[in-house]
Amino acid sequence: MPVTLKEVAERAGVSRSAVSRTFTDGASVSEKMRSKVEKAARELGYSPNALASSLTTGRTKLIGLVSNNFHNPIFLEVFDLFTRGLQDRGLRPLLVNLSEERDPGNSVRMLRQYSVDGVVVASSTLPPEFALAFRDAGVPVVHSFGRASSSPKVHVVGIDNVETGRMAARELVARDYDHVAFLGGPADATSTQDRYKGFVEELENHPNVRRSESFAAAYSHGAGRAEMLRLLEEGQPAQGYFCGDDVLSIGALSAIRDKGLSCPKDIGIIGLNDMQMAGWENIDLTTIHQPIRQIVTSSIELMVAMLDEPDRYPEARIFPCSVVQRGTLPAHPA
Amino acid sequence: MPVTLKEVAERAGVSRSAVSRTFTDGASVSEKMRSKVEKAARELGYSPNALASSLTTGRTKLIGLVSNNFHNPIFLEVFDLFTRGLQDRGLRPLLVNLSEERDPGNSVRMLRQYSVDGVVVASSTLPPEFALAFRDAGVPVVHSFGRASSSPKVHVVGIDNVETGRMAARELVARDYDHVAFLGGPADATSTQDRYKGFVEELENHPNVRRSESFAAAYSHGAGRAEMLRLLEEGQPAQGYFCGDDVLSIGALSAIRDKGLSCPKDIGIIGLNDMQMAGWENIDLTTIHQPIRQIVTSSIELMVAMLDEPDRYPEARIFPCSVVQRGTLPAHPA
Repeated sequence: MPVTLKEVAERAGVSRSAVSRTFTDGASVSEKMRSKVEKAARELGYSPNALASSLTTGRTKLIGLVSNNFHNPIFLEVFDLFTRGLQDRGLRPLLVNLSEERDPGNSVRMLRQYSVDGVVVASSTLPPEFALAFRDAGVPVVHSFGRASSSPKVHVVGIDNVETGRMAARELVARDYDHVAFLGGPADATSTQDRYKGFVEELENHPNVRRSESFAAAYSHGAGRAEMLRLLEEGQPAQGYFCGDDVLSIGALSAIRDKGLSCPKDIGIIGLNDMQMAGWENIDLTTIHQPIRQIVTSSIELMVAMLDEPDRYPEARIFPCSVVQRGTLPAHPA
Repeated sequence: MPVTLKEVAERAGVSRSAVSRTFTDGASVSEKMRSKVEKAARELGYSPNALASSLTTGRTKLIGLVSNNFHNPIFLEVFDLFTRGLQDRGLRPLLVNLSEERDPGNSVRMLRQYSVDGVVVASSTLPPEFALAFRDAGVPVVHSFGRASSSPKVHVVGIDNVETGRMAARELVARDYDHVAFLGGPADATSTQDRYKGFVEELENHPNVRRSESFAAAYSHGAGRAEMLRLLEEGQPAQGYFCGDDVLSIGALSAIRDKGLSCPKDIGIIGLNDMQMAGWENIDLTTIHQPIRQIVTSSIELMVAMLDEPDRYPEARIFPCSVVQRGTLPAHPA
């Protein structure tokens, strides 16, 4: 049987209200009282019940952490940062896997059942309708890795994917390639669309450079490999590729090497994310660094602020990216 | 404002008790009644509140999913399987990151606050004291990837790590190596100790084969690479290594290639887990397959059974492993 608040009060020789105040954030209690109560609680093994107290405070301290790509290693880093960051603030992530969910309404119902205090949608491929559905249901929501906007409809924390497309194009053009290509993620993801848009825009400044494009079925190793194999078998591949993210890039690299070609000698690759694996010496991927840690930290800060101010005016927090030179593009011309 | 049970009852033209029974697992309600209530609930957008109903049922349907290694890609597969499997049964995982936690008491307090119905400890490196602490606190617990035992103290689902050590040794000996080695994970993890024990036992049958051993600081790419670099710089490396798991193996491979050596020509490697990445064509790791999917499914089934029968007698469910021949050991002699 769990220890009750009443037992703690009796052992500490204080009122039940004093025990309750000791375990309520922001409630007033003297240092002496707090230390008596905490000692008794420790001795009895008492834990205040977050869910029972949620009935009076209206707060469960549960945060839905919604994602949909459990085949992209970048998400292990994202989950690590979110779980630690939320725990450090006394919040708890309820992990929701929407890999096969197409209906935003279902995910809203799922999370409302648990009276989550808020929801973080951590995905660049879930359609914006998911974050909007939470907002419309009155649930504080942050869309991490969502689409940058100058008039955001919900809180968005991430990068300007259009700009990353421009950066990638500039890197490829600087290698004097005369045929460059975009090998994107799923064509219906806003992140893919934006990366492609920037890529095309930048290349319009270089009319002598031939451009081609194609799209993989998912942000996954298998999808990147399959698409690059198809391109190589079709013939006339480009000299340099902007692959939509790192895991696609690693899949494409595997296809290039299997066909007896060399990277970067025959074909150059630049990825996006700079996940830990991109820096592994046997992968050594030239890529665009997405500041994952800063995006997660800022998302948590924004969520915490919204818990106190649910009607907070929506904002887009956009972080700069940078190119990390490694081994899959030829050395940058000085 | 959320839709209430009373509003659903009014719209459906039934009693409040009928609505309540419709949304209570196992409660009796006619098919006709259920269909009326579900229609009204759908039309009004009603979601039964799992936490409020937990006050009457005593069940929150929250399951603590406790882990500690967010740098090993195998865990993304583990989280994917657990989240889907729990969701399919109407349960919700509360993800707990114990990467820096050394005190089992803290994790018990953290999860009791949330009145979780049960806890899955998903780790081969968290000491058994964590699962025991949950058991002692009266929380149903399953230790997935825990230590195999013929007299388990808590429910354990996993593999016989001693046997995997024997399997790895047999594979290396079959290549006619005269010096083989164990490059394990952290020396204080039971999984490392057991894998090493089996490795040594099997080699006792081959007194002409020289054996050596060392231990990496963690099950991570960086730790595997650092340890293999140290061994190569020390000189006299073994001809074949059993690396404690796949991510250590990939780190070790990176060190071997950086030193201008070739795998498997100069040094052979066998790993353990068979995570998706092991099968990537640019990694192509010979390894021992751990049946992750079956272990997760069985862990969830056991947890569900314990929710109905918390005093269930503890059992160890042990799954067989098998060698997957790929490119990091020479072809198996026929």
